[in-house]
Amino acid sequence: MKLHHVIEAQQFDLATLSRLFEVTQRMEQVVAQGGVGDFQNRVMAALFYEPSTRTRFSFEAAMQRLGGRVISTENASEFSSVAKGETLEDTIRIMNGYADVIVLRHHEMGAARRAAAVSRVPIINAGDGPGQHPTQALLDLYTIRKEIGAIDGLKIAMVGDLAQGRTVRSLAYLLSRYQGVKMYFVAPPLLRMKDDILNHLRERGVEFVEEPTMEAVLPEADVVYQTRIQRERFGDRLADYEKCRGIYVLTQESLRRMRSGAIIMHPLPRLDEISMEVDADPRAAYFRQAQNGLYVRMALLTLLLDGTTHPRQY
Amino acid sequence: MKLHHVIEAQQFDLATLSRLFEVTQRMEQVVAQGGVGDFQNRVMAALFYEPSTRTRFSFEAAMQRLGGRVISTENASEFSSVAKGETLEDTIRIMNGYADVIVLRHHEMGAARRAAAVSRVPIINAGDGPGQHPTQALLDLYTIRKEIGAIDGLKIAMVGDLAQGRTVRSLAYLLSRYQGVKMYFVAPPLLRMKDDILNHLRERGVEFVEEPTMEAVLPEADVVYQTRIQRERFGDRLADYEKCRGIYVLTQESLRRMRSGAIIMHPLPRLDEISMEVDADPRAAYFRQAQNGLYVRMALLTLLLDGTTHPRQY
Amino acid sequence: MKLHHVIEAQQFDLATLSRLFEVTQRMEQVVAQGGVGDFQNRVMAALFYEPSTRTRFSFEAAMQRLGGRVISTENASEFSSVAKGETLEDTIRIMNGYADVIVLRHHEMGAARRAAAVSRVPIINAGDGPGQHPTQALLDLYTIRKEIGAIDGLKIAMVGDLAQGRTVRSLAYLLSRYQGVKMYFVAPPLLRMKDDILNHLRERGVEFVEEPTMEAVLPEADVVYQTRIQRERFGDRLADYEKCRGIYVLTQESLRRMRSGAIIMHPLPRLDEISMEVDADPRAAYFRQAQNGLYVRMALLTLLLDGTTHPRQY
Repeated sequence: MKLHHVIEAQQFDLATLSRLFEVTQRMEQVVAQGGVGDFQNRVMAALFYEPSTRTRFSFEAAMQRLGGRVISTENASEFSSVAKGETLEDTIRIMNGYADVIVLRHHEMGAARRAAAVSRVPIINAGDGPGQHPTQALLDLYTIRKEIGAIDGLKIAMVGDLAQGRTVRSLAYLLSRYQGVKMYFVAPPLLRMKDDILNHLRERGVEFVEEPTMEAVLPEADVVYQTRIQRERFGDRLADYEKCRGIYVLTQESLRRMRSGAIIMHPLPRLDEISMEVDADPRAAYFRQAQNGLYVRMALLTLLLDGTTHPRQY
Repeated sequence: MKLHHVIEAQQFDLATLSRLFEVTQRMEQVVAQGGVGDFQNRVMAALFYEPSTRTRFSFEAAMQRLGGRVISTENASEFSSVAKGETLEDTIRIMNGYADVIVLRHHEMGAARRAAAVSRVPIINAGDGPGQHPTQALLDLYTIRKEIGAIDGLKIAMVGDLAQGRTVRSLAYLLSRYQGVKMYFVAPPLLRMKDDILNHLRERGVEFVEEPTMEAVLPEADVVYQTRIQRERFGDRLADYEKCRGIYVLTQESLRRMRSGAIIMHPLPRLDEISMEVDADPRAAYFRQAQNGLYVRMALLTLLLDGTTHPRQY
Repeated sequence: MKLHHVIEAQQFDLATLSRLFEVTQRMEQVVAQGGVGDFQNRVMAALFYEPSTRTRFSFEAAMQRLGGRVISTENASEFSSVAKGETLEDTIRIMNGYADVIVLRHHEMGAARRAAAVSRVPIINAGDGPGQHPTQALLDLYTIRKEIGAIDGLKIAMVGDLAQGRTVRSLAYLLSRYQGVKMYFVAPPLLRMKDDILNHLRERGVEFVEEPTMEAVLPEADVVYQTRIQRERFGDRLADYEKCRGIYVLTQESLRRMRSGAIIMHPLPRLDEISMEVDADPRAAYFRQAQNGLYVRMALLTLLLDGTTHPRQY
């Protein structure tokens, strides 16, 4: 059960998730009390081959609130790798000499796995192209557990672009590990949840329905997980795009249909798929969800670094 | 008198300025003694939508000398905001989950005020376009107080581009709060101090004169505040530009005309409006002035963070 | 023997090198034990006028493992200097107000020396254009001493581009300070070691030979120092380039010819001049060499900062 690398959402079984969420809960207290110095002089490298300021900030704040240190780049492509032809593997081997843990953001699917194959220090996948972004899925799950109280028996509606969103795909996968979860997939035909996930849910015996509109679903769901519909997916069928966007806007009217104990989640950034007027409602959980990212990442760093000595010598 | 945000120079009354300068003075001692650990595990976010390395470095060094931590970006425009259409307000709300204080540099006037309106943690305005840059005005004032001994009764000459320089405009405004200050505005007609400030000074009964050249003013002034004349303001009237620049160069000859206890200030960077030969004179205060920026920013961070617990929970 | 600035390899005499390597060895232990807090609240400025992520990371990790703090930029050119015409000297003077030590990377030869001339805090040259990169030469020397046990009596083969590589030029120079060193220069005619170094070696009575191929040299050398041959040096004579590259590839066959106690070094990044299959051999020292950079830089920072108080007041 010792964590070595964080590469993909699927690697987390129920026991590891449960342990992770325990530590995450402890991190909330730690931060409220002003942080700890457990990782004084431990160094985290944020190695971002493409900018993702929010994800980087969340990891860097997490490491620093643990008392640790950060070295950081958002243009690792100007690093030797691309500029002079160095392989990702060599870059990782060199970083092993400087850092105790490496947070990797890369544009190529599978990059995190390749990095982990040669790294003596833990790799955390902070997104590898169309591949995985496991810490987002973990913070989503933690948010549900914290806000709703339990995951078993959950009724969740996922709304918007279910075809390409890494977030909803990983979340659906992780939720399938729990008991009695029911999922409502609300998406236009072009953006419906893909068959690999649906088949996986059928195999696990997870109940799900596909719905073209939100209205019937809102009174049922404990969680309404809203996503951004991306214009670029529609090519020049702009009318279709505008129509999809129009259907899936959460407003005060939507709040009236929702259960009093339900919550709205969103991976952010949001455009107008959630009206500003919704923000003031206590069920608007999306900014709390982003803040949970800090605690989950603190917990992951703790699980990865605890009991290790560094930097690992060649 | 508790500071919540630092948005504009005008928000500082005499009592707050006096308190700020007391703390700033203490900060000079703290740094000389190797810093303090008061803000261990507190996180400052430097959120710069445009690069301003010097201002960023000054804030980051200030936070770190207080024992605090920093997360930082100089290309926040590649952040979700611009790239995906997120509002500044949402970005600030998310940063509230990571950081205990946010230093914001933005290209749009009013951005700092908009950020403060939604932020649960303090916002410090590090320049918002043609708007405000209040910490520069505060460090200018602190420098005068430290070098000259008092601000009441001060005679100050402001030289160069008085029309567009945020620095001299804010400084004139703040100085109007003190007693018996006399101002000499030395500028070419195109770049003279604008009427909004002149009217404000008249209302406050502050004595001022406008002078086309420096020579008559130099023997009078306690402070000669030199600024850079920016070529782009002159369009294709290049001869006019060269003439203005030519008049307003401080040299050893200028030093001979100045009083022995007077000082030269400059917001920096300088081009050739102050000759290199002037640097060696003890009255050349501009590099000390830049260093005071460190202490003033340490003091502001202390006033903003003291007694708070963080991060503020949603 | 007190170090004030680190500008060029030549400034290090045998006594200083010996002291530096003692401290470096201590740093290896310090890191293995989790670092120290000696430089709590001391601030290092990484002032990079061109990106060099690896060098920057190495310095930043070094400072942080000493308990120190870092302020950092990789685009110092967008700083006032270039953008508004500020001189390097003024920038350094301002940084003196914020930082306790400045690591400078610059595109112009001689920049580090100019910076040191006006700086009240130590300057470390992290590469100034075609000029010097002294910390690379120091970590090379430390690696030889650590891996081989002694430098006196060393037999070293330098392979590849000996004409332009700062690394091999500085290393040859430093090695000439030691007794009984023999050098083999293996390079195509276009890329042979330049006469200034060869003449220096003759003056010092250092034994060297020039060889067109590696094969005869491999069984002799204690150290095979491989370098990357840069295509751009060959212009459109692409056939020549391919031929040079072809000759100088280290493979398992090369390992069979090498002595059992010998090592392979490389400044990295490597392309295909060392086959991946070589990595697993214990004589492949190049990743250990990169890691030694961390320890050497920690030692330099320690020697520069020990006993100073900061920031130096104007």
